[in-house]
Amino acid sequence: MGKTIVIALGGNAIKRAEEEGTAEQQLRNVKITCKHILEIIKRGYRVVITHGNGPQVGNLLIQQEEASKLVPPQPLDILGAMTQGQIGYMLQQTLINYLREEKLNIPVATIVTQVLVDKDDPDFNNPSKPVGPFYTRKEAEKLIEEKGYIIKKVKPGEKAYRRVVPSPDPIEIIEKDVIKMLVDAGFIVIASGGGGIPVIDQNGQLRGVEAVIDKDLAGERLAEIVDADIFLILTDVEKVKLNFRKPNEKDLDKLTIAEAEKYLEEGHFLPGSMEPKVKACIRFLKAGGEKAIITSLDKAVEALEGKTGTHFYKA
Amino acid sequence: MGKTIVIALGGNAIKRAEEEGTAEQQLRNVKITCKHILEIIKRGYRVVITHGNGPQVGNLLIQQEEASKLVPPQPLDILGAMTQGQIGYMLQQTLINYLREEKLNIPVATIVTQVLVDKDDPDFNNPSKPVGPFYTRKEAEKLIEEKGYIIKKVKPGEKAYRRVVPSPDPIEIIEKDVIKMLVDAGFIVIASGGGGIPVIDQNGQLRGVEAVIDKDLAGERLAEIVDADIFLILTDVEKVKLNFRKPNEKDLDKLTIAEAEKYLEEGHFLPGSMEPKVKACIRFLKAGGEKAIITSLDKAVEALEGKTGTHFYKA
Repeated sequence: MGKTIVIALGGNAIKRAEEEGTAEQQLRNVKITCKHILEIIKRGYRVVITHGNGPQVGNLLIQQEEASKLVPPQPLDILGAMTQGQIGYMLQQTLINYLREEKLNIPVATIVTQVLVDKDDPDFNNPSKPVGPFYTRKEAEKLIEEKGYIIKKVKPGEKAYRRVVPSPDPIEIIEKDVIKMLVDAGFIVIASGGGGIPVIDQNGQLRGVEAVIDKDLAGERLAEIVDADIFLILTDVEKVKLNFRKPNEKDLDKLTIAEAEKYLEEGHFLPGSMEPKVKACIRFLKAGGEKAIITSLDKAVEALEGKTGTHFYKA
Repeated sequence: MGKTIVIALGGNAIKRAEEEGTAEQQLRNVKITCKHILEIIKRGYRVVITHGNGPQVGNLLIQQEEASKLVPPQPLDILGAMTQGQIGYMLQQTLINYLREEKLNIPVATIVTQVLVDKDDPDFNNPSKPVGPFYTRKEAEKLIEEKGYIIKKVKPGEKAYRRVVPSPDPIEIIEKDVIKMLVDAGFIVIASGGGGIPVIDQNGQLRGVEAVIDKDLAGERLAEIVDADIFLILTDVEKVKLNFRKPNEKDLDKLTIAEAEKYLEEGHFLPGSMEPKVKACIRFLKAGGEKAIITSLDKAVEALEGKTGTHFYKA
């Protein structure tokens, strides 16, 4: 058997920012994404897929608000579970179709995945992750009053405010046994979508929480449990940059753990964006992974061949 | 190992008609439901669970309509996939918690499930399954014009109209291999939620369709692939009735295939309600199943002990 690779897909792999997100648009994007994944499969890798869900949860939040007088809004753990079904289905159906075309007899399964976080994670006291629509100051004040939301000003302009929620660090994938078993049995597994459904342990009992786990950090936990050789984060840039958006900006081709940690500390990477991706790569290598790569979807195959992308190695 | 049982949960097991369906209410219902399932597990059965999703899809449809100027509505296959994540998560978390309390080391997994239907199924030309909100005549006319919905008058009163969609017969569970494998490995599997995500085969390619598969008929296909001994349909009545709502109404305790077929033909069972349940039971026995039972959730354990419910046998 070939090497095991965990592929973490960014939100743009399913819904592009410039699109409104009809089912047709999302399915078209999923087809492009899965075509790249198919190429990876055809090169003999065992593939495990995780994905973001920001745009999909954002749309559900808008729908919930618009209909809040008619239908009770659901919390973020439930919405996360919904998007795992939604996106998992689209990926799974598309992959099955491509595999059939290629006469490759590889089964595909999507696992509804809970991810454990620490109920004392510092992020619960200082939420940082923006979710859902932008609000005016007046709308924001109303939501703070009525719903107890924590809302922050996130950009200039009239609609400058956005709800922020905790983004606690993922500790463990609850459904690890089934995922591991299916990967070992040769399945392409789609799991931990949207960073997983966030749950805490309360006296031995799992309970969903209003939070959003970073999908790359959760993807790294996924990579650990399936003993992945390679952790591949696909985003919207071909390479990670040093001195991001400065005159001396520079592409990074190859990084050791020590170099990556130094650059992290120096603040080269945007929090909530490239920073957790680099953190996830470092964590993967420290846990025993062979290589982590950050690149763009359309460069995925080339990056695996060593031709592009930013590659992270132990030393 | 004990006998394998497929349990088909009705919509009321998760969202009661008299409740608006907050996350708290649904989770409370799920806890009650899973308590009964736990009792069945403790009696040594291997359990496979499927469930309805009518109320949840209905709520998503309302939200989509209210926000249709802001967020593009998704088709029924996508909504079905969402509710598999949503309800699967609630059932799975609750079962894991109960099993932990009982120190029972049985893993649980929810599988996102597509169900194949015939693209030439007669129901595509004559949709019969009502979904989503009720409309006034004027609203109905607008939706027929703008969206091409098929809308029928379903009851008297002002809001008398409702969208109807095809309810094609389930042929095959696409994810049968993974479900079978997990059941054989000792997992409690939650699958084919909401009757499964309806897909057709178009020149070898799977494609989602705007339809809703009956969850008991799909549950029967699930029971076939896991070689279930018992197929247990939990609904809101303790026993199936002959001469339903007539002066000579009578509880049915025990039925052979021949008797059930005779009563079906005589029209004793309500289409879209008890009729598909009885059909599913007959189909299960003909496919080699040992026993099918229809009863209410709170009588499930007693029914398994032979004390109540309507029992279907081959002869």
